[in-house]
Order: sequence, then C-alpha cells, then structure tokens
Amino acid sequence: MTVAMLMENTVESAKRYLEKHRPNKWNIEYNTLCLQSPVPSDIEISRSCIPKPIGQIAEEIGLLSEEVELYGQTKAKVLLSTIKRLQAQQDGKYVVVTGITPTPLGEGKSTTTIGLVQALGAHLNLNVFACVRQPSQGPTFGIKGGAAGGGYSQVIPMEEFNLHLTGDIHAITAANNLVAAAIDARIFHELTQSDKALYNRLVPTSGGVRKFSDIQIRRLKRLGIEKTDPAALTEQEINRFVRLDIDPDTITWQRVLDTNDRFLRKITIGQSSTEKGFSRTAQFDISVASEIMAVLALTDGLDDMRLRLSKMVVATSKNGEPVSTEDLGVSGALAVLMKDAVKPNLMQTLEGNPVFVHAGPFANIAHGNSSILADKIALKLVGPNGFVVTEAGFGADIGMEKFFDIKCRYSGLRPHVVVLVATVRALKMHGGGPTVTAGVPLPREYTEENLDLLEKGCSNLRKQIENATTFGVPVVVAVNAFKTDTEAELQLVCRLAKEAGAFDAVKCSHWAEGGKGAVELGQAVQTAAQAPSDFNFLYDVKLPIVDKIRIIAQKIYGADDVELLPEAEKKAELYTKQGFGDLPICMAKTHLSLSHNPEMKGVPKGFVLPIRDIRASVGAGFLYPLVGTMSTMPGLPTRPCFYDIDLDPVTEQVNGLF
Amino acid sequence: MTVAMLMENTVESAKRYLEKHRPNKWNIEYNTLCLQSPVPSDIEISRSCIPKPIGQIAEEIGLLSEEVELYGQTKAKVLLSTIKRLQAQQDGKYVVVTGITPTPLGEGKSTTTIGLVQALGAHLNLNVFACVRQPSQGPTFGIKGGAAGGGYSQVIPMEEFNLHLTGDIHAITAANNLVAAAIDARIFHELTQSDKALYNRLVPTSGGVRKFSDIQIRRLKRLGIEKTDPAALTEQEINRFVRLDIDPDTITWQRVLDTNDRFLRKITIGQSSTEKGFSRTAQFDISVASEIMAVLALTDGLDDMRLRLSKMVVATSKNGEPVSTEDLGVSGALAVLMKDAVKPNLMQTLEGNPVFVHAGPFANIAHGNSSILADKIALKLVGPNGFVVTEAGFGADIGMEKFFDIKCRYSGLRPHVVVLVATVRALKMHGGGPTVTAGVPLPREYTEENLDLLEKGCSNLRKQIENATTFGVPVVVAVNAFKTDTEAELQLVCRLAKEAGAFDAVKCSHWAEGGKGAVELGQAVQTAAQAPSDFNFLYDVKLPIVDKIRIIAQKIYGADDVELLPEAEKKAELYTKQGFGDLPICMAKTHLSLSHNPEMKGVPKGFVLPIRDIRASVGAGFLYPLVGTMSTMPGLPTRPCFYDIDLDPVTEQVNGLF
Repeated sequence: MTVAMLMENTVESAKRYLEKHRPNKWNIEYNTLCLQSPVPSDIEISRSCIPKPIGQIAEEIGLLSEEVELYGQTKAKVLLSTIKRLQAQQDGKYVVVTGITPTPLGEGKSTTTIGLVQALGAHLNLNVFACVRQPSQGPTFGIKGGAAGGGYSQVIPMEEFNLHLTGDIHAITAANNLVAAAIDARIFHELTQSDKALYNRLVPTSGGVRKFSDIQIRRLKRLGIEKTDPAALTEQEINRFVRLDIDPDTITWQRVLDTNDRFLRKITIGQSSTEKGFSRTAQFDISVASEIMAVLALTDGLDDMRLRLSKMVVATSKNGEPVSTEDLGVSGALAVLMKDAVKPNLMQTLEGNPVFVHAGPFANIAHGNSSILADKIALKLVGPNGFVVTEAGFGADIGMEKFFDIKCRYSGLRPHVVVLVATVRALKMHGGGPTVTAGVPLPREYTEENLDLLEKGCSNLRKQIENATTFGVPVVVAVNAFKTDTEAELQLVCRLAKEAGAFDAVKCSHWAEGGKGAVELGQAVQTAAQAPSDFNFLYDVKLPIVDKIRIIAQKIYGADDVELLPEAEKKAELYTKQGFGDLPICMAKTHLSLSHNPEMKGVPKGFVLPIRDIRASVGAGFLYPLVGTMSTMPGLPTRPCFYDIDLDPVTEQVNGLF
Repeated sequence: MTVAMLMENTVESAKRYLEKHRPNKWNIEYNTLCLQSPVPSDIEISRSCIPKPIGQIAEEIGLLSEEVELYGQTKAKVLLSTIKRLQAQQDGKYVVVTGITPTPLGEGKSTTTIGLVQALGAHLNLNVFACVRQPSQGPTFGIKGGAAGGGYSQVIPMEEFNLHLTGDIHAITAANNLVAAAIDARIFHELTQSDKALYNRLVPTSGGVRKFSDIQIRRLKRLGIEKTDPAALTEQEINRFVRLDIDPDTITWQRVLDTNDRFLRKITIGQSSTEKGFSRTAQFDISVASEIMAVLALTDGLDDMRLRLSKMVVATSKNGEPVSTEDLGVSGALAVLMKDAVKPNLMQTLEGNPVFVHAGPFANIAHGNSSILADKIALKLVGPNGFVVTEAGFGADIGMEKFFDIKCRYSGLRPHVVVLVATVRALKMHGGGPTVTAGVPLPREYTEENLDLLEKGCSNLRKQIENATTFGVPVVVAVNAFKTDTEAELQLVCRLAKEAGAFDAVKCSHWAEGGKGAVELGQAVQTAAQAPSDFNFLYDVKLPIVDKIRIIAQKIYGADDVELLPEAEKKAELYTKQGFGDLPICMAKTHLSLSHNPEMKGVPKGFVLPIRDIRASVGAGFLYPLVGTMSTMPGLPTRPCFYDIDLDPVTEQVNGLF
C-alpha cells in the first residue's frame, strides 16, 4: 500500500513537473490563501497577503527586464515593445466577463473576473491573465468604495489599485484640461486680436527666422494651403489659418476632474475681468468620461494614439467645419502627456496571478472596457493554451455590446467565451423586489429564500444571455453566490440560465473561497472555449447613424423604436455631413435598466428610447447618443466613504478603504 | 622623466583612492560632458546624456535598497525611514540659492543650483545633493517651458522632470479638490436636510451597530462633547455636531488644476438644477498654490503631515468659528492621497549627481521652496563634509525670506551660505533698460555692453545682498554669465557685489560648461561655509500680524509703511481672535519688483505696501497677506509652447520641450 502510494506520488510529481515545463507554460509561484470565516473586510484580506515583488511576476510570465518599468514593489508598467517581440506567438483564449442588469451595489463582476483567473491559474494550472480597469477615485471617496474585486478575489495591494495607481487617470485629467484651456484661450485671443496680430504671434520670428511648426503645416494642409513659407500666405489664407472661428455654442469638450464634485455639473466660466466679459456656460465631467480615456482604451499603439489624439473634435466653427485638437495646436502635447499612461499596469491577484490594470470604468457614460493594448499583450504572454479574462463594464446591454461593437471592431480580436455574472439579489430585484440603495440595509426579500421573486427576475438573465449569444459567442453564466443565497435559489438560476441558451451555468463562491470557489466556472470556461463560435457584429458601421442606434435599441434593449429629439436629429445630420457617420455607436444609457428608465427592472417592454443628443468622439472613434438625462459627474452623499479612511502614521497602513 | 611621471601618477592614484574611500565619502561615478559650442537646445543636451540607472545612484549615495522605490529607470522615491536610520549622522553644510529681482525670463537660479552641485561633486569631489522643486505643468505648456535648469546644468531626463514626474502634483490636485467637493456638498446637504436626517446619515446603523468614526469623535471633542455613544447626544449636541454651518462668503478654499486655464479665474458653480439653486462664485488656482503643496513642503514626517492636513481651515461658520478639513471628515482621506507624494523624488544631474525633486514653485503666490524632508534626508546622506544646495523661488525678497522665516523656522535647520544669482540682463533692466517680455526678442541694450545701465541696476543687487545678510548668513554672489555679457560687465558686477557686503562674488558659466563652469563658485561656497554665521529670524512670530507684515515690508522690500485695506483689517482681527495670530507670514507679492508694482524696477523708494486681504493656511502654518492684485491662475498666450511639442512615435522621444 505504502509502495503503491509512493509510486503514485512519484508519477504525479513527474506529471506536475512536465506540466510546469512544457513550452510556454509559466513557471509561476502561487500564494496559498488562508481562508477565514466569516470573511474579513477587503482591506484586511488584502493586507494579510504579502504580494510577490512585481519584478518576480514579470519574470515568471516571460517579460524581459527591459520591458518592465517598476513603480515601487507592487506595480509596474509594461512596454508596448512586448507585442512586437512576441508577434509570432499565437494568442491565448479570450474571455470577456459581463453581467445581468445590476443593482446599484454591483454584482461582483470584477470579483468574478479575479476569482476566475485565480481558479484557472492557481488551481487549473493554466497561463492566465486578468485585464481590469482602473477605478475612478471619485466613487472611491464617494459612495461606492474601492473596486479591486472583493473578499478572497482581489487585486492587491488594493490601496494602490484604488488610489493613484501609476497616474494614468491623472495624466488623462491633465491632457483633457489642457485642451479645454486651449479652446477658451483661443476663442479669447481671436476675439481680441486682428488677423495680423494673431498671425504675428502664431508664427513669430525667432532668431531672425520665421517658420511654421509641424502642427501648423498639417493645419495648412487640411485647409488646402500647400505653402511652407509664412511670407507666402495671402491675406485670405492668413485669415483662414489664424481663425478657428469656434462657435462657443457648439463646444462639446468639457473639463474633467477625478472627484465627485456635483457643484461643477453646470458652471459659468470666464467671469474674471481679465477675460473681458467673454463668459460662457460649461461643465466638468468625471475624468474617466474623457474622450482621452476612450482613446487610451481603444488605441493599438503609440502612433495610433498620437493620431487619435490629434483627430479629436472639440467644436464646430461658425461655418460648420469640425475643429480638432490639431487645429488648436495641442495634439502633440497630448501625446507627450499620455506617453506613459499608454503602457498597461501590471499588478497581481491575491493568489499571485498577473493582472493588467488599464483604462477606466463607467460603461454607462463611456465605453467602460479595459484597454486593447493590455488585452493584446496579455494574449501574447499567455500563449495559445492560456486564457485572458477581460472585463466589460455594467450589464451585457452596455459594456458587452460596446466591447463587441467598438472594442473588438478596433482590436480585430475575437472572444471565445462570454462569462455572464448573475446574482440572486439582482435577479430578485428584477422580479419585483424592493429598491436596493447603496448605504441602506437590504430588505429581507434579499436575505431570505424567495424562489418566486427569483424566477420572475430571471427574465433579465434570459434577455442578457440572448444579447450575448446574438454575437455568436458561447455564454457561461456565473452565479456569484452570496452567503444569504440558498442552494435551491442558486440551482434555480443555473437551470433557467441553461434553458435560456447558456452553454453552461455554474455557481461560484470565489468571494468566500478565492480561486478554489471558481474552479467549476474555470472548467466550464475551458470547455466553452473549445466550442465552435461564429462571431458577428450587431450592425454594419456603414448604416445611417439612426439605423445603428435603432438596431442597438431594438435588438439589445428590447425597445419598440427610438425617438431622436431635435438636438439629436440636428447632430446626426451634422456628423453625417462632416464625414463622421461611419463611426460605431457608444450609447450613453443608464446601467440600471435595459431601458432608459432606471426604475424599469426585469425586461421592459413597449418603450421608445429617447435620444436627447448625439456627441462625436472622433479621435476615440465613436458617436455617443445620450439616452435621456445622464449625469456625467457623480456627487458626494451626506456621509461619503472618506469618513472612515485614514492613514496610520506609524505602520503607514491605509485604514477604512473597502 | 618617465619614471618620475609614473611615480607621480602612482601617488596621485593612491591619493584619489584614499579620497574615495574615506568614511562617508560616496563612491560615485560621474558622467563626463561632451561640451559643444554653440550650446544645443536643452532637450538635445538632456537626451545626449545617458542617465545612470537611478538604483545605481541610490546605492552610490548610501541608500539601502529597501529605502528606495523605483519609478522606472530614471526616477525613484526615497522612504522617510532614511532619516531615522541616519539620525546619528551629522548634517552636511546647507546652502540656499536665491536671486536678485528677476526679469520675466528668469535668471538661471535652477541652472545655478545644478551647476554648483555639478561643480562641488564631479569637480571638487565632495558629497553633494541638489534639492529643487517640481515644476508646474501649467507653465511648461504655456509660456515658460520646462524648468530643469538649462544648457549643461540640468536635471535629467528633462521630460520626466517636466511632465508628471511621480505624480506628486497630481496627488495634490486630487486631495485639494476632494476638500472643495466636500465643502460644497456639505453646505448643500445641510441646507436640504433636518438635523435628524443629517445625523441619521452621518452616523448610520451598520450591521445593527451605530457608532461614530474616529474622525467624528475628534470633532465631538473639539466641540467639548465627551461622548462616544451616538444615542447619548442631546438634541442641541446633535445640532452642533451635524451643522458645520459654513458661511459661503467666508470660503477660502479654492479648487485647483495644474493647467493654465484663465477662464477658471472666476466662475459660478452649482448651476445645475440638481443643486437646487445653491450656486456661488468660486475660482480655480494653479495646483502648486494649494495649501496642500505648502503642507508637503513644510512637513517633517507622516504624522506631522496628517496633523497639518487635518488642521487646514477652509471657511468660517456663521458664528465665527473656523471650519477645518477634519470637521468635514475628509482629513484622513487627504493623508491617504498624499502618502506617496510625501516621499522625495530622486533624479540626477547631467554629470550624475543626486537630485531631490520635491514640492513646488511659485514663490510669489506660495512659499515656493523645496521640501524640508528632501533637505533633511539629503543633509544626512551627504554627511558632515558634504553639501546640500536647495533652491528658494524668485528673488531674495520673496523665496529667500520665506525660506528663512517659514521653512527654517519649521525645520530647525540653519543655512551656512546664501548663493545669490545675478545676471547682467536683469541688472540692466533694473538700471532702466527696456521691458523684457517672454517670447519677444531682447532689445539691444541687453545684447551689447552697457556699463552705465548695468551699474545703475546694481542697486537691486545691493539691496538683495543686504536682505540676505540681514539674516546673518554669508552671501556669495553668482553672476550667471550669458554669451552676450562682456568681461568688463561681469567684473563690474563682481566688484560692486563685494563692495555691497557679499562674502564673495564670482562669475560662472555652468550653462555653457556644466560643473566646470562653476568650480570657482563652488570654491567660494566652500570657503564661505567655514565663515562664522549668526543666523536670526527677521521677526518674532508672537508679534501682532500687522507688525510682522510691516517688518517684512520695511526691512526687505524697502517700503515706507503698509496699508491694510478693510478686508485685510477684518481678517487680521478674525485670525487673531481665532488663535492663528502667531503664525509666520507668507507674503503673496509680485516677484518682478521689490515693491508691489511690477513696473518699479531697481530699488523702489517712498511707497506704501497695500495689503488687500489676508488668508490663513493654518495647516501649512502661515498667514498670507495678498499684496495688491495677484493672479493665482496663469493663462495661455496666443501661441503656447505646446505648438512645438510632439512625441516621436518611433523613437518615443519627446520633441519641442525646452
């Protein structure tokens, strides 16, 4: 018996050895979790694990030391040159995590992303990478708290993840606001100076020489003026060159801050006497809603980023021409400000898997997907037998639709599996349960078994499964179990999900158990990744703008039709005329309902989707219709999270983040 | 002959060896500059030098690897624990660099700081550290360009120095604006809720338990309510606890951005219907003017920083009480946001000396000195035979006075030498030369010899020497030579400086020659550091506010008297009553004249200094009188620097920064 066991062990260990050393297989050291019950707070769990030095992870996953820029011991930026080095490498399997229509509390999509990766890596021994988004600091100090996953499925250290990280969002804020300052300053200078004075200042004589900067030459070319000698321009050409002639009423570029500052939602600027009365109404948005964040997420390299940053349209001139960041002369500076932000940030899960944190959230008012560059580098690093699990924000109607129709369109990547996260809590809400509000205790419908409410609410799950399968990709439903859920409830959801066309549906308990709690999910994803898929976009970008909007509204949201309000009609016409009609669509819609009305739960029927306005993110590469009224700047509640947050000056530990 | 040379070489090399290995002497590798003439652009020079890996420098200067957090290959943060480890080490010599009243072009104070450090280190073989300030990105993209020194005396890589660095200013922006959002949100919530509703929200029941957060307990203590059970408060106590009752007209806390955005100088906020009509006039300042920047510069550790961040007063309540960041509940979050920013940033000079880059500029509207923590760590690292050269912003009347009366008061450090930078150009301007404007070619008075104009202008130099010697510290004048200066002009300045009481006066050419061009300056500083000094503050902080202001105005600026306008009178009274009367004074005054009027060059006489208003930076620890009208938000010119800035997508190099 003992000899048999010994032999068995030897064979097992030989198998493990081979497994570990086969080509492309990472030689990676995982952390073993010491699971506690009840599950401690997120920050306590995060702190109880000692992260591996990030340089070690980089080495374990095959990055060369010159491809990694350390930012302290737990964060690093990975250089884009990695893609080029690994270009011959076959990509891994590509998994996107999405969800049903959530409650305001969130349903654990990030947690599931991390849990799944911990399962596939530390428990199923595959190369696997998580690609998640950097949280906005606004909600971190507002009502929501941190966003590093939760329980035993987290990115660590969670305080680094939730605070400045490596400064990407700060870079976006700086770049965005430089554009805003340039717009108003330019309008001011044009209003207060003659053509001649403007020209003399814009093209000054320096060291006896007068010449155009490169950025000015490009503007001249766009104007059809093929001259490079400043002395050769006619008066009329000078006039056209120096005057952007921005119509202040058409400015679509807003200032941003990564702070929940509700008093900046609508402001009047330019009221100092130095601005000589040229005041106007403006607003601040949350930074992650900046077009520059979308550019960061959708670009596939430095050259492309620079181009996108120069094509951003900020306003229309009085004679109807689009005015771009390059017309303002600021596009090069934007590329310079974004040169480090474009490199994905490497961190790790609690169990020691690599995680890329890149680009931003808010799939309602932005596209809310992690970056193409992070996904691409990760797909090369994991290799053909590995997995990359990337996260799309909010429900499948929002983040996933944008993932497919915008992100995949630009990246050329094709996902193998959709993981759709559902919770009993949210499904009960869709079944007619009472309102769920952040910061308020849950009504008992959510803490006690209620199969009836749950079954009703599964309509939303069914619709979101249908939304995912529309794109031709197999769907695995992950039922993210809460401690109050009963076995009967969890089984009911799994059964209904499979009936609704899911490839598989499994319950998982990664919040309480880490990767171990998502092993079954990992296996389902592995199997689904082998299944045939037949990916297709929802719409042809060549269709008229309104047709594209209608297709999304009808096929994904279940609307009867769309109604373009006059402002939206006008914009659809303008953008078509300006040549931007072929861009894909990024709907700005509430995430709390399939419809435009956050109160309408389950699967709303018989509604017409109102399109209030349309904006163009020409650099990022999409048009975004505003569905009803969407706030682009959150506010602080009476008791923001920050009341509990403090720094221990002795241990230097952050307390109170959650 | 050959034998003699050989022996001489052997002796020399033995001497060098001993020199290198004596205790505390750094074993540091310097870069040899390949000087070119004419001197190439700053960015070309910066790029032509390959920086040493920053980890190598850290090791060379005796930092332990666990005391260093790398931020890529060329920047690192140094942990504050270094001070504790080296507490038994004797400090080095402490040198402060200041200047005469500058032209708008600047007179090369940063360049001289770096040149002097290159000379003392790479040429005179001493342990030496430069401590400089991080530039604001606003001017970098506006009119001024970068601020990493210039020519062959620079901090490298200059693009890293001039852009985000490690994100300290971004952290300040985030922290500052969280306070601003908290103020307006709190006013809004108080205006729209009953005491009971506020109390229920501020002290919610969570998991069946209701308790105060630590920050709330501290507020209760300040209110004299020694209770910890939320149920025990009387109605009146609840009223006092929940209502900060901020008088909106008394708010002194402004929002900030690190962007030159003139249209934010005066704005109206809160105009969205969601704010229910509670709009008010507000403004944005440039980020480096934030009180949080001053806290960063003046703190001596994490515990002290946390305390200062909690003591910041943002407004006065309707019954006259100061309202602090701790009353708002936000102070702990501020400490958390600033936990990394408080660590000084290590970079290097062109010749390979260590440089700390920490805290911010703008000594006119802020105190504009590099951080106490950077200076303290550097003084320990160089040891008793070494030198730390720190920079104070603008002229000696501004940055240096604040260095002595504010920074040295808080740090307890005593400088050994003042280096006062003068240029022929600025002195000619003070002698009556035509206006010098950034972006416009210099009139020929400045490019041709004119001893008469120069001699007249030396009045300003004389006065600034006197200002420095008032503090009892020997002054070495550094005449920063430009290529158009003649030998006779340079000699005249040196002679007049010595006659005016300078310990020494030397011309230097570090811009064109690097450290080699400042060797004589280095020697003069070494000698001066041995001279007896008798440091004293200009005023006793216990004096009444107006007396302290008058002493600065009369003794440093040469004013006949000061005149407090009604708003300033009122504030002097208020702050005295609130118990802030004993703080030192940080004058907000133009840097372009000794007086309040930038047009008055040389040594203005017979003027009365108008004090328009007084603000309190209680956390940072000073009162700041506003002298006349001071803009706290720069603007963009018609052709900002950004027209020339671009990123080369192939080489990833930044072009056009200067």
